[in-house]
Amino acid sequence: MAKQIYKQVLSSLIFLSVLLYQSNTVSSFRKSLDLAKPCKRFVFHLHNVAYDGDNTVNATSAAIVNPIGLGDFNFGKFIIMDNPVTMDENYLSKPVARVQGFFFYHGKSKYDTWLSWSVVFNSTEQKGTLNIMGENPFMEPTRDLPVVGGTGDFIMTRGIATFTTDHIDGNKYFRIKMDIKLYECYY
Amino acid sequence: MAKQIYKQVLSSLIFLSVLLYQSNTVSSFRKSLDLAKPCKRFVFHLHNVAYDGDNTVNATSAAIVNPIGLGDFNFGKFIIMDNPVTMDENYLSKPVARVQGFFFYHGKSKYDTWLSWSVVFNSTEQKGTLNIMGENPFMEPTRDLPVVGGTGDFIMTRGIATFTTDHIDGNKYFRIKMDIKLYECYY
Amino acid sequence: MAKQIYKQVLSSLIFLSVLLYQSNTVSSFRKSLDLAKPCKRFVFHLHNVAYDGDNTVNATSAAIVNPIGLGDFNFGKFIIMDNPVTMDENYLSKPVARVQGFFFYHGKSKYDTWLSWSVVFNSTEQKGTLNIMGENPFMEPTRDLPVVGGTGDFIMTRGIATFTTDHIDGNKYFRIKMDIKLYECYY
Repeated sequence: MAKQIYKQVLSSLIFLSVLLYQSNTVSSFRKSLDLAKPCKRFVFHLHNVAYDGDNTVNATSAAIVNPIGLGDFNFGKFIIMDNPVTMDENYLSKPVARVQGFFFYHGKSKYDTWLSWSVVFNSTEQKGTLNIMGENPFMEPTRDLPVVGGTGDFIMTRGIATFTTDHIDGNKYFRIKMDIKLYECYY
Repeated sequence: MAKQIYKQVLSSLIFLSVLLYQSNTVSSFRKSLDLAKPCKRFVFHLHNVAYDGDNTVNATSAAIVNPIGLGDFNFGKFIIMDNPVTMDENYLSKPVARVQGFFFYHGKSKYDTWLSWSVVFNSTEQKGTLNIMGENPFMEPTRDLPVVGGTGDFIMTRGIATFTTDHIDGNKYFRIKMDIKLYECYY
Repeated sequence: MAKQIYKQVLSSLIFLSVLLYQSNTVSSFRKSLDLAKPCKRFVFHLHNVAYDGDNTVNATSAAIVNPIGLGDFNFGKFIIMDNPVTMDENYLSKPVARVQGFFFYHGKSKYDTWLSWSVVFNSTEQKGTLNIMGENPFMEPTRDLPVVGGTGDFIMTRGIATFTTDHIDGNKYFRIKMDIKLYECYY
């Protein structure tokens, strides 16, 4: 009887060990991700004030290449930015982070952009950066962009940023609600 | 005898628990990756029709900065694109995805490019994006580029894209075979 | 007595199996990362010789867009590069890798840059690329940037690159010490 138990237990242990070993050596995988349970989440608002040649003090972004005239949707306009991020929608609220990076317009027959942004935190609560990049079809009500890496409190993080355009005032100002959900947290 | 078994089993369980615990807390690792077994794979063809000032209807990409005259290999030419992707090599086939992003020439003494592209799927079969970026020495017969993230059906995906230049027609047109192998699939 | 042991062991095994199962299906996680133990590490020096219109032979980088006049800190200057990397600080030492990519200045009231670089290895020891990207506040003594992916010997790698500015000679030359620590190694 004791021998039988011993055999059963041993084979179970061997099976478990093989599972563990496999999880260390075979790396291609399919996993299901519980999108409702990020390890960290932030919701805040980005403010972009475009430079018009006269608003040096207030401007937070500026075109470094102008549209090239292919279509009527700013194709080729390339913008560099250093934008404040606030907890509420008020531009005058205290920034909790900055977003630094670029975006450009690439739509020939509609407005469409592509971006690569670093969210930079430098407060007592959070220190570090995370990087968002990719296609941003900003005429859609919401769109997802990948978070591909980070530093400091966000070292090696990954996840999804969901953008909603809060407000657009022509070419002068826009505000984006950023809902950042991280699913890999190493800190 | 039973006590002995108990001890052996217990120590095995403790060992396994330590292994498990370690796999949750120590994150630096070396794993071998079975490159022959991606969790998802796509092979398709990207078509790039350069804007020449006269082909507004057909153009899928355009230079927004021209070569600056350093060497004879287009150094500094910066291109924005919104290119169709098809299953076969025929430009007129129905697109299964689009590739949006940019690339630029940075070779002083040979042709060489660097790119950052989003592959955008929006069909009944696939919805989502994946991002490819990095050095693209397109005079090589094939080259690998990293896939660094994604959204939708490709949320948080990672892998390798192998590019082969199918065809180049001067500065007017090129076609690239993209063999995308994903090794992390979360959906 | 044996029955009791059997029950205890069985419940432990079930508990372990549940743990294992969870680790395969629930993907959001918090892990602690032992920063002192990367799976790979490189320390080397990058050399950037700016093109001034006259130094075609020696130049390793060149501005493709000039500052737009917003502030006094080169805002809008966009640089493309193909820089050698050496083991020591001597520019004339044999390169062990090249860094290809771009960076731009985005500071309105101080010097500040954003970059996206591929480190390209092509020697008998190492073949492959790794990609570093994000905010680079180069006036800080050191700064961390994320490593978001790679190919070849660095396939799907991730980690942190710590940059220290070794030397700046006006707009002509700079040298950066790159301390690259990888925490995910698949090869």
